Amino acid sequence: MRFRVKDMDIASGGTFIAILNKKDARHLDLHSGDRILVKDGQQEVTCILDISESNKAVPEGKIGLFEEVLSRLQVKDGDSISIKLTGKPESIGHIRDKLYGHKLGYQELYHIVDDITHDRLTDIEKTYFVAAGFAQGWTHNEIVNLTKAMVATGKRLKFSKVTLDKHCIGGVPGNRTTMIIIPIVAAAGFTIVKTSSRAITSPAGTADTMECLAKVELSEEEIKRVVRKTGACMVHGGSINLAPSDDKIIEVEHPLSIDAEGQLLASVMAKKYSVSASHVLVDIPMGKSTKANTQKKAQHLKQMFELIGRKLGMKIKVILTDGSQPIGNGVGPLLEAEDVLKVLRNDSGAPADLKQKALMMAGLMLEMTGRYKEGLSLATKILESGKALKKMNEIIDAQGRQQKPILGKFLFMVRASRTGRVREIDNLVIAKIARIAGAPDDQGAGLYLHKKAPDSVKKGEILYTVFAPTEFKLELVKHYLQKIMDISSGENHETEKIAEHLGI
Amino acid sequence: MRFRVKDMDIASGGTFIAILNKKDARHLDLHSGDRILVKDGQQEVTCILDISESNKAVPEGKIGLFEEVLSRLQVKDGDSISIKLTGKPESIGHIRDKLYGHKLGYQELYHIVDDITHDRLTDIEKTYFVAAGFAQGWTHNEIVNLTKAMVATGKRLKFSKVTLDKHCIGGVPGNRTTMIIIPIVAAAGFTIVKTSSRAITSPAGTADTMECLAKVELSEEEIKRVVRKTGACMVHGGSINLAPSDDKIIEVEHPLSIDAEGQLLASVMAKKYSVSASHVLVDIPMGKSTKANTQKKAQHLKQMFELIGRKLGMKIKVILTDGSQPIGNGVGPLLEAEDVLKVLRNDSGAPADLKQKALMMAGLMLEMTGRYKEGLSLATKILESGKALKKMNEIIDAQGRQQKPILGKFLFMVRASRTGRVREIDNLVIAKIARIAGAPDDQGAGLYLHKKAPDSVKKGEILYTVFAPTEFKLELVKHYLQKIMDISSGENHETEKIAEHLGI
Repeated sequence: MRFRVKDMDIASGGTFIAILNKKDARHLDLHSGDRILVKDGQQEVTCILDISESNKAVPEGKIGLFEEVLSRLQVKDGDSISIKLTGKPESIGHIRDKLYGHKLGYQELYHIVDDITHDRLTDIEKTYFVAAGFAQGWTHNEIVNLTKAMVATGKRLKFSKVTLDKHCIGGVPGNRTTMIIIPIVAAAGFTIVKTSSRAITSPAGTADTMECLAKVELSEEEIKRVVRKTGACMVHGGSINLAPSDDKIIEVEHPLSIDAEGQLLASVMAKKYSVSASHVLVDIPMGKSTKANTQKKAQHLKQMFELIGRKLGMKIKVILTDGSQPIGNGVGPLLEAEDVLKVLRNDSGAPADLKQKALMMAGLMLEMTGRYKEGLSLATKILESGKALKKMNEIIDAQGRQQKPILGKFLFMVRASRTGRVREIDNLVIAKIARIAGAPDDQGAGLYLHKKAPDSVKKGEILYTVFAPTEFKLELVKHYLQKIMDISSGENHETEKIAEHLGI
Repeated sequence: MRFRVKDMDIASGGTFIAILNKKDARHLDLHSGDRILVKDGQQEVTCILDISESNKAVPEGKIGLFEEVLSRLQVKDGDSISIKLTGKPESIGHIRDKLYGHKLGYQELYHIVDDITHDRLTDIEKTYFVAAGFAQGWTHNEIVNLTKAMVATGKRLKFSKVTLDKHCIGGVPGNRTTMIIIPIVAAAGFTIVKTSSRAITSPAGTADTMECLAKVELSEEEIKRVVRKTGACMVHGGSINLAPSDDKIIEVEHPLSIDAEGQLLASVMAKKYSVSASHVLVDIPMGKSTKANTQKKAQHLKQMFELIGRKLGMKIKVILTDGSQPIGNGVGPLLEAEDVLKVLRNDSGAPADLKQKALMMAGLMLEMTGRYKEGLSLATKILESGKALKKMNEIIDAQGRQQKPILGKFLFMVRASRTGRVREIDNLVIAKIARIAGAPDDQGAGLYLHKKAPDSVKKGEILYTVFAPTEFKLELVKHYLQKIMDISSGENHETEKIAEHLGI
């Protein structure tokens, strides 16, 4: 069958999509979601079929193609091309099996993950995969095989020395221990290849924060060069092709905000396995806003990490930490980077909680290697002697030093409406404020916490300062604060309302 | 925030969709799948957000709108409109609960079904609903409540007299008992309002077959008029708004071809409940190609229908029938309609299996009402006296008689390559042949079975004749036959190969 191309002037952002008119589809017995082979001479590409109900979008006799398909086939509007029905990928049968409660083996999981990696499955099919795994549960072996499949369908970096890594499951603003731990561990002579993510729903990921100081989008070759030179790197994982299926799976988890444990474990472990880490320290912050919001969940997650790590042949240590409030004082890329630099420079104003947590973790990592017994004191010595700062500067220079961004120029200070003690700080509200102010896109946006729980505070003292790049964004922050405070309080005094979520 | 409209020149076929550039979305902290309120003066509509990765499709500062949104807001390319973030529908939380294994009540199911009906959920969210229900299972009460919610979110027809209905779960080509049963039952004085579906994967649905004789797309008012006049009707259910969520749910079941029992039961019962049927006869054909492919499955399905029917206050009778081969001789809309007319006219060449099954079922329905004891003999009397044919003509005239379509002019006869007995006939292969020949869109396309199992047949006798509207379609059929026969046979003689799937 031949059709005339209609350039739809849209990119799908992945999947190859072709659209036929409803009538043509019926004649050819084709349905939405069917796979068709679209062919122009030697070039051919498998597309997922979409049906146009209207004659305006795609009239009879035409085939609507998205940008990806047009450029792959090198055809343009009005060209004539042929189509052929092809079968559905084998992986759909495996997803179906999982939905029916069967266990999947490595080969089956590999097929599914490979098809996801190469955009051969539709959102509906991917959703069935995630939903089936979630509702039926994954066995330990399935999680291990899923992890291996995610690694096998992407790049894998290998290094000659013992390679360390760390991970935090997130949920706590300002928790930038990575940027302190890595220089300490590297200064102690270990290789540590840290790939981090950017913020999705938080005000800053480690990659966003590091980017205030150095380039983080590095190629595989550049990463290898930096690691050879400095023993470490802190880059954006997305810039190299490590376990690329992960992001594509997360896309369909997002709409329902489901917290699929098996998927989380595979996602984290795949990133570690992709950089050939042999020793991994995992930080599970516990708190209302984190994935481990009960002691039971945290303990279970800890055991699962240890178990899966063991099955993958890695040394894993898991620590449960306090995630009840932000770590450090700054929230937002630049403000968090400043906290990190203060700690590395041994400034007197450095946030004590961030320093203490980073030293504890660096110490544990040094001990995990089996080469040191007094990890904490060694880590402290490395930090306080200035060796960590020196290593950090080496890493920054090797990755490519960036000019530091400017702090948001529009400020809004929230003061205590009465004397008392900060009872608690709501991580989610803090994150939301920083995001509305512009973080992480506006690197200098965010907020600085002058007080933390359980600090005592006098009436009129500053609780926190919001930094925004424009007056407009600052107004949005004020608007948000008024709105959320209205819910829990009938008070009229604005400052008092705003102060409330700091729990005074 | 204000954006300039870009007319995307695409219809989504339901859901309201708006597209923003990736950068605008990041600035506003919006994600794919978020709901935004798009506003132009007094008009506003909630859209599901899609993100454009490219600057070509939707540049910064623009908002891409689909046809549905443009016409609802009455805006055009270049107009300026404003947007606002709104929350996700409550129903997403209920879907999430189901995925986590919780049971849902009527109110929660109603929210979900109502949002599906009004296209307020994305495909991903609908898929989570179907997958969650499938993997976690639905309780009997949930199925009853789902049925009620599906009915409540659509139209409901009410009639003054006892209203009968029948249903077949499908899977057997040619099984057009409905068009014989309805005139018999109506001639006996009962009200029977039959809404049927069109073919989705089969060569003909009852609506497609009836359409060869009469109009089937009737409005609610027209249906009421036909029923008042004749006591019955046979129309396309899709033309009135009965349980409209059903088709929208089936859309996301299709890609994985899952056979969700709870959904099937709710779907069938909702259609019956929507026409206020008090007595329903359900036909479950058993065979390799039907949903009841084992005795155990058939028995289970029977019990479920009876149970759910009882809970909905309906009298339900379920029969298990032979679904091992096609019923009647014709397959395809016109060929099946001809079989029906032969039976109603008491032609000597009328297919005995179709006649016998229809009489048995009509008899059971008459007995179910409690008004008759010898249902079969009454049904036979009504048929053989010509009263059923007279009633059929009344119904056809009331609905609007159609000129009969022309039988496909291009024929292909398949003959037996040796003498023997027809062992079995593969329903799926027969359906596929008829569809490739053009059914159901080409009403005169299909095939006529001259032999059925366990007929004896002599070498050279015709097994079946394929009818296609064009030479091209006939070629496609021959091509298909060659292909499928190659798999199971190394023989060269073409006719022999083709005969094989008739099981000779």
